[in-house]
Amino acid sequence: MDKEPTYRLATSDDLKDIVSMLADDDLGAKRERFEDPLPQSYIRAFVDIARDPHQELTVVEEEGQVIGVFQLTFIQYLTYQGGIRAQIEGVRVKKGYRGRGYGKKIFEYAIGRARKRGAHLLQLTTDKQRPEAIEFYEALGFVDSHEGMKMHF
Amino acid sequence: MDKEPTYRLATSDDLKDIVSMLADDDLGAKRERFEDPLPQSYIRAFVDIARDPHQELTVVEEEGQVIGVFQLTFIQYLTYQGGIRAQIEGVRVKKGYRGRGYGKKIFEYAIGRARKRGAHLLQLTTDKQRPEAIEFYEALGFVDSHEGMKMHF
Repeated sequence: MDKEPTYRLATSDDLKDIVSMLADDDLGAKRERFEDPLPQSYIRAFVDIARDPHQELTVVEEEGQVIGVFQLTFIQYLTYQGGIRAQIEGVRVKKGYRGRGYGKKIFEYAIGRARKRGAHLLQLTTDKQRPEAIEFYEALGFVDSHEGMKMHF
Repeated sequence: MDKEPTYRLATSDDLKDIVSMLADDDLGAKRERFEDPLPQSYIRAFVDIARDPHQELTVVEEEGQVIGVFQLTFIQYLTYQGGIRAQIEGVRVKKGYRGRGYGKKIFEYAIGRARKRGAHLLQLTTDKQRPEAIEFYEALGFVDSHEGMKMHF
């Protein structure tokens, strides 16, 4: 990493780059469809995210190139005396830029955003098929206190 | 359980009943403040939830009495080709009504709501300090595929 990456909210012009990154890993390859033109479902989803004040879809740039992405959601709950939780999902670093410390930088930025918006915690779930990810998150200060349970329809 | 419970979106008149339930368990007792009048933070949180079209705070009633509560959040993501995930949190059944099958009924209703709003999955995290809860969720069809990681600020 030569320079510090920069961060900005994604625009619809970034959508192709983002979906390309989402599709480009072992689990993502089974779930996503990176095609030209992009499936309409991604475009509809982007519009909903961009309009929602509780969501921040952020791209990471280096020298004007999009090299990463993540999505933060700020969820208002009644628990914890009416606390706001930040939740992070869909973190990806572009192939060719992995293993160079971008992941850690991105999380440090996301933690800062979550604090700035008044969240009392940042949470995520990580697939048990990615054991190296669990160690990465623990090194950042996350505690593996919960089971993440999913029901696919 | 004599009759099927009924479900409706919570109103501000329900807030005292809801916070009472949130405070009334081992983990909740440490986190919540059930006082008269209720701390303003709960009221602010309720207003934000009620205004947000992606949130449904639902109370469960039997014979006109609030006996349960849960919160569903519908989160738009780009992953899964622009899928919507439903997330359930803050599920509580009032003391005196526990162990009688209400939890299962509530989840069946919540699963139906999630499907109806077009979510492709329903997810939750459950504290590893509640092992009996994990078995309960597995019996409903949830798969314990993820680690739920939290960073408290």
